[in-house]
Amino acid sequence: MNRQELIKEFKEKQTFLCVGLDTDIKKIPQHLLHEEDPIYSFNRAIIDATAPYCVAYKPNLAFYECGGLNGWKSLDKTIHYLRENYPHHLIIADAKRGDIGNTSKMYARCFFEEMGVDALTVAPYMGEDSVTPFLEYPDKWVILLALTSNKGSHDFQLTEDATGERLFEKVLRQSQQWADADRMMYVVGATQGKLFEDIRKVVPEHFLLVPGIGAQGGSLEEVCKYGMTKDCGLIVNSSRAIIFADSTERFAEVAAEKAKEVQQQMAKLLK
Amino acid sequence: MNRQELIKEFKEKQTFLCVGLDTDIKKIPQHLLHEEDPIYSFNRAIIDATAPYCVAYKPNLAFYECGGLNGWKSLDKTIHYLRENYPHHLIIADAKRGDIGNTSKMYARCFFEEMGVDALTVAPYMGEDSVTPFLEYPDKWVILLALTSNKGSHDFQLTEDATGERLFEKVLRQSQQWADADRMMYVVGATQGKLFEDIRKVVPEHFLLVPGIGAQGGSLEEVCKYGMTKDCGLIVNSSRAIIFADSTERFAEVAAEKAKEVQQQMAKLLK
Repeated sequence: MNRQELIKEFKEKQTFLCVGLDTDIKKIPQHLLHEEDPIYSFNRAIIDATAPYCVAYKPNLAFYECGGLNGWKSLDKTIHYLRENYPHHLIIADAKRGDIGNTSKMYARCFFEEMGVDALTVAPYMGEDSVTPFLEYPDKWVILLALTSNKGSHDFQLTEDATGERLFEKVLRQSQQWADADRMMYVVGATQGKLFEDIRKVVPEHFLLVPGIGAQGGSLEEVCKYGMTKDCGLIVNSSRAIIFADSTERFAEVAAEKAKEVQQQMAKLLK
Repeated sequence: MNRQELIKEFKEKQTFLCVGLDTDIKKIPQHLLHEEDPIYSFNRAIIDATAPYCVAYKPNLAFYECGGLNGWKSLDKTIHYLRENYPHHLIIADAKRGDIGNTSKMYARCFFEEMGVDALTVAPYMGEDSVTPFLEYPDKWVILLALTSNKGSHDFQLTEDATGERLFEKVLRQSQQWADADRMMYVVGATQGKLFEDIRKVVPEHFLLVPGIGAQGGSLEEVCKYGMTKDCGLIVNSSRAIIFADSTERFAEVAAEKAKEVQQQMAKLLK
């Protein structure tokens, strides 16, 4: 799914919402625990209910890995289900991988060939040769961590070098030598508010994947005010506030309502 | 496995070698491909052959994830085999994980509870709350990336702040507030040579996990010259140079020879 296709989806559906499939077995409705694969059943229901209101789905790998083999099966089935039924939704594996070249190449094979997702989040700490193996797949996206949504983002990402450049700015600047806005996006937390202005000074065109609205407290209005471009330029993720909005048999219906609320806000902000 | 137990192992066995189980299905001996689970068969043979010469095994997760469900099965069986037969060897999952607190907690559950490894490599980019969930398990180790072995380590890890402190030094210094030398180790690449002196200024006591000898070209003598402490303080990893030293039916025997060579060098250096 390339940049133009993505922009077209945003316009047609009037949304830039990504639904985070952080499917914690301890939080899904009780009645699903009787199903053969509760996580997959939950995901399928959430996907069917929310698909009209979002452009992307983002399973976070941790929630599947922690289920061992069964977790991987659930993830695999979820991705196949999306591929089959919602081919125009971007599938982002939120895995935050990154290793020496030889090893990143194996991860790339895992996510882009075996698993078949469209995009992968990657950690920048190990530098260029840990990221470039993921860029060898045409029409696949690397989403590099820049300024994350958590409190710990202050520990290292805001460190200024001798010239006053902060680490997240250096990551943004330097990584543009590895790929352009057609292949790379960046993770910027919704909780970072006015710092989106500084981000846009370095990457005026790139899409940003923005987690942190909803349960983490980031504001959609603020993100758009400081981070939106003429092509929208934002994919805003919400996980818990949508998928765990209700824990009864109505969970999917309520998730749809929540997703629709966000979509309607987004439609206004896109004008 | 706590620090004292680890030090005891080193002394008794006169080695501080870690064998990296980066088991690439494309590189294992052809005749194993007829086995039911070639990766597990390979690992088991390598482990039985090299166990007397090493103190730790380090499967890199990428090499298992890229095999999908079967890959995870192979990893799971390998860890069980180690647990069962070599309970005094440290098992390090080289996964370089790290995410917001809520998610790191899931990864911690995955690796320390479900999978049952002793130690996990963690990426520091997202800061304190991405690392501390891994520290909630007594007798389990966090091995934080500090200065890696690859070329890309120069991109961000060596960036100096206004006071002249480099990012890897800040990671070392700041993370000591999260856990002490009984719970935390650091990854420092064998290719970093004299920089081990600077590392030891910040973390004089901590164990360092050192990849990069062998195929990546780091020197064991240099690592020991600049990085060794009175308790040894080093776990030096070799993967490809040992496990893929031979691709015939003699592969395990040759791996044992290679591991023994390194162990003998190490025994001398421990004196």
